Amino acid sequence: MLNKLVIIGVGLIGGSFALDLKRARLVREVVGIGRSEANLARALQLKVIDAASQDVASAVQDADLVLLATPVGQMAGVMAQLARALPHDAIVTDAGSTKGDVAALYRAHLGHHLARCVPGHPIAGSDLSGAAAARYGLFEAKKVVLTPLEETSPEALARVRLLWEACGAEVLQMSASEHDAVFAAVSHLPHVLAFAYVNSLLARPDAASCLQLAGSGFRDFTRIAGSHPEMWRDIVLANRGPLLADLAAFKQQLDKTIAQLEAGDAAALSADFLAASQVRSGWKR
Amino acid sequence: MLNKLVIIGVGLIGGSFALDLKRARLVREVVGIGRSEANLARALQLKVIDAASQDVASAVQDADLVLLATPVGQMAGVMAQLARALPHDAIVTDAGSTKGDVAALYRAHLGHHLARCVPGHPIAGSDLSGAAAARYGLFEAKKVVLTPLEETSPEALARVRLLWEACGAEVLQMSASEHDAVFAAVSHLPHVLAFAYVNSLLARPDAASCLQLAGSGFRDFTRIAGSHPEMWRDIVLANRGPLLADLAAFKQQLDKTIAQLEAGDAAALSADFLAASQVRSGWKR
Repeated sequence: MLNKLVIIGVGLIGGSFALDLKRARLVREVVGIGRSEANLARALQLKVIDAASQDVASAVQDADLVLLATPVGQMAGVMAQLARALPHDAIVTDAGSTKGDVAALYRAHLGHHLARCVPGHPIAGSDLSGAAAARYGLFEAKKVVLTPLEETSPEALARVRLLWEACGAEVLQMSASEHDAVFAAVSHLPHVLAFAYVNSLLARPDAASCLQLAGSGFRDFTRIAGSHPEMWRDIVLANRGPLLADLAAFKQQLDKTIAQLEAGDAAALSADFLAASQVRSGWKR
Repeated sequence: MLNKLVIIGVGLIGGSFALDLKRARLVREVVGIGRSEANLARALQLKVIDAASQDVASAVQDADLVLLATPVGQMAGVMAQLARALPHDAIVTDAGSTKGDVAALYRAHLGHHLARCVPGHPIAGSDLSGAAAARYGLFEAKKVVLTPLEETSPEALARVRLLWEACGAEVLQMSASEHDAVFAAVSHLPHVLAFAYVNSLLARPDAASCLQLAGSGFRDFTRIAGSHPEMWRDIVLANRGPLLADLAAFKQQLDKTIAQLEAGDAAALSADFLAASQVRSGWKR
């Protein structure tokens, strides 16, 4: 049971975490912190949080747990404020989509507090954002990856794990670099491709007809291009090493397809499409 | 009211068309033709069709309308058989995803019959295939594009339009080349990108971890990579001119993103992601 949970960034992830823990009676009070007063007012109105604040120092007094659920690009500023105000025992965790850079931020700003820092990443993204997107059960049967620092205490790690499990999530543990390599491939690369694809469509003179005639394949393929631009700018910059490598590999694969098309090589196209189709059809989640 | 409808290729599209027209009492008898006896047996069992045949010549005797719903790559062979057997008045239409090449096939094989030929493309794709995927209402609120030949009679065009409208579809009309340019952009390119993306993932040594940790963004982005490989081989080859141009434009856009990433140009990344995100979020379908 947490006496006081502070959520910094009350959006889809932070808000849904608060809702689930309140429903599970694992937290007494949730304080939300954010840049947008309108969003905090909405969060209060929806009872996602019990109190709102724009002042980190006063809000984290007596906090048991602080969840950083802002875009990664804002975490440095938030941690600098936390460094001066955090109670000695408070656990700090985060929901950042990249983990190598967030680990470096913990070291830079909370070096005295690393035993209580538990970097994490709930895999429950969405193109929705803001407190109004928060909902019960968002993490049910979803995965949460924790990437503890060398210094993270087993007890702090266990407590964070338990809270995510109480939200219905399956918790996995790996190193920050393993995490970042995998998510460059399965998440960051698809987002970059979807953004680039939509922009290449917009550059066409017949873009309006295209959008009018686009069907369900387009709908699903481009859903992630509706994602939060600032958050995704931060993610791709934070993880640009692995991402650039994956982009190069993707371009090679695409050039192979282009060569097959130019050559009219039906057998090679079939074989490649079949390989992808079989894996995708067999993928269960 | 059609006395006899012949569906060549009883899959998602052909089967769903038959179901809707039967429910609307617009057809007395549906005869299904296909290469797979198991699929035809399934179609009979599910009452998608009333009779099955593997012989085009006998099946199309007395037919009022023939729908070609096979992959485009099989249409030449089917039309060659139709040429010898088609009743003088029978309307021929198709559901091919490319229209320039199908128009050429009509001219090559059914030159004597062009007034009764109505090329078409229902926009209701899916990664599902086979008669078992057929369902009522598939075309409800979907678009169907008809690309009549110069020779197509207004009466034949009107009859095909009416049948699709009876299935709940919105029918549009354009030239084959307009159609092919738009669908290269909104459908064929995304499929090629999704196939290439899945194949680039499979080439990784940590592909298994990637598939295990992939989330809902991956799920939607790659759904079309589960599509029918043979059908998509035919489509991309049939429309490779416009598709190769779109691939080149996409690669340019991707190179722009890569340069922004390499330069760490946060403002340019934000601006491009925002442009895509706004269009995608505002897109309604």
